[in-house]
Formats: sequence, C-alpha cells, structure tokens
Amino acid sequence: MSVLNFNVNGVSKSATKLESKARSFNITIDEPEDLGGKDEGPNPVEYILAGYAGCLNVVLNLVAKEKGIQINSLKLDVNGDLNPSKLLGGNEDRAGFRGINVNIEIDSPASKEELEVLLFEAKGRCPVNDTIANPTPIQYAIKQQVFVN
Amino acid sequence: MSVLNFNVNGVSKSATKLESKARSFNITIDEPEDLGGKDEGPNPVEYILAGYAGCLNVVLNLVAKEKGIQINSLKLDVNGDLNPSKLLGGNEDRAGFRGINVNIEIDSPASKEELEVLLFEAKGRCPVNDTIANPTPIQYAIKQQVFVN
Repeated sequence: MSVLNFNVNGVSKSATKLESKARSFNITIDEPEDLGGKDEGPNPVEYILAGYAGCLNVVLNLVAKEKGIQINSLKLDVNGDLNPSKLLGGNEDRAGFRGINVNIEIDSPASKEELEVLLFEAKGRCPVNDTIANPTPIQYAIKQQVFVN
Repeated sequence: MSVLNFNVNGVSKSATKLESKARSFNITIDEPEDLGGKDEGPNPVEYILAGYAGCLNVVLNLVAKEKGIQINSLKLDVNGDLNPSKLLGGNEDRAGFRGINVNIEIDSPASKEELEVLLFEAKGRCPVNDTIANPTPIQYAIKQQVFVN
C-alpha cells in the first residue's frame, strides 16, 4: 500500500469552537465552560486520547488475528495529565501532556506472556502511539487573506 | 489552575470500531472500507488531526486576544502523510505520521510580522502541538479478565 494522506479542515466558529471535517464526517471541537468554551463538543486533547484508543483497538485486533489470539472483549481507557500553565501564558511544565496512561482490559484465553507480546508488537506498529511517543516533524504555513471593502 | 486530567474510555465493537466516551460525549472511531472497516466514523489518525486543528483554534484566538490582534476569520487545514507499512507488519518507514502540515488561513488586519509572532507563540503554548512535536511518556497497563463458566 502506498503512502496515505489524511486531512482535516475546519472553520473557527468561536474562540474555542471549530467545526471541522474529515472526509464526510463532521467533527465539532469545543472547550468545557471551565476552560472558556460552551461545551458543544469534546475538547482538542480529548480527541487526541480518543484517536489513541481507537488506534490501539485496530492494531491490537490486527496483531491478535495474525497471532491466532482470541479476543472476547476489549476495553480501553486512555488518560493524561496536563498542566495548563503554559497554555495560559505561564512557564511551569511543558505545554503538552506530562504523560499518557493507557489501561487495557482484555478478555482472552491467551497466556499472560502472549498478551505481553501482543501489546509490545501492537505498540510498535500503532501509528498514533508512534506519533505521540516520538517527535513528529510539523510544518506551518500561514496565509493572510486581504479583503478590500 | 491545577493540573488537569483528561480521560477517554471505549469499548471495542469490532476489529476497527471503538465506541468511546469523553465526559458526556460519544466518539465513534472506525476505519474506512479500504482500511478494513465499515466507515462508521472518522479513523484514529483523523481524530489526531482534528484535535490538533481544534487546539490551534483555541490558542491562536487566546494569544490574539492577549496581543490585541483582531481575527475576522480563521480556517485550519491539517494533514499528514502516513506510510501503513509498519502497521501492516512491514518494515518501511516509521509507524506514525512522517510529518504533519498545518495550513492556516487568517483574515486579520494585523501585519505579517504580527501574525508570525502570533503563530510562534501559539505553537509554543499549544498542548497538542507540544504533545506531537516532542516525545511524550506513555505508560501501559494490561489487565486480563478471567471468566469462569
């Protein structure tokens, strides 16, 4: 399979709300009221955690299938601590997640060792895990619209 | 403001679909058909890009307000190239995004230089930018359920 390009584009509806699209899907992002928004959708970092959980679901199932490991049920809890100091203009801590915790609850007849191998391989092949665990190059371009009235 | 914890938890509904929750919000993650899913929601990496775009909206508006920069409209396009080789068991390239491109279209009476300063500061204070651009520590825990019939 060749290299894939994924794209999301959005329009700012307020200082906290973005209406975005990924292909045919609408994704609304907002902040809760205590972070200055109107709580009209999950907030940006919650989408990061959701994407992470969703990716692990895909890769755990994919690797389990390859290894003949049966999964009867799978639950994922992904959470992270974030110090908002830098976001708000301060200087404590880093701006992003201090760390992320992934808790996996699996019902499977596989041995503990088989599950550890499954998890190790899934982590290494998970696009979101790699994007977050390791540095990812980012390029910015800014285009200023000029309106003449 | 003290350190905040954000949480998403989900239940696997198929090898590609995760039904997850962030507070009161349901977030459905699936893969398109050409990636083995039923296309019942955006895919994991699209949520990463959406969270990124949403975060930049928040921080650009926040920093612009502090600096007295007027934003009349703001559009964000975030995309990234991903080689699925590693995900599929191969060895080419890294598993995650090779790189992410952020394209900002802004209508503002600010000067080009003011917008460059705005962008520079917003990048540095954006939790999602920092989480992705720099390594983020991740801890895994796996719990095996044992059902006795």
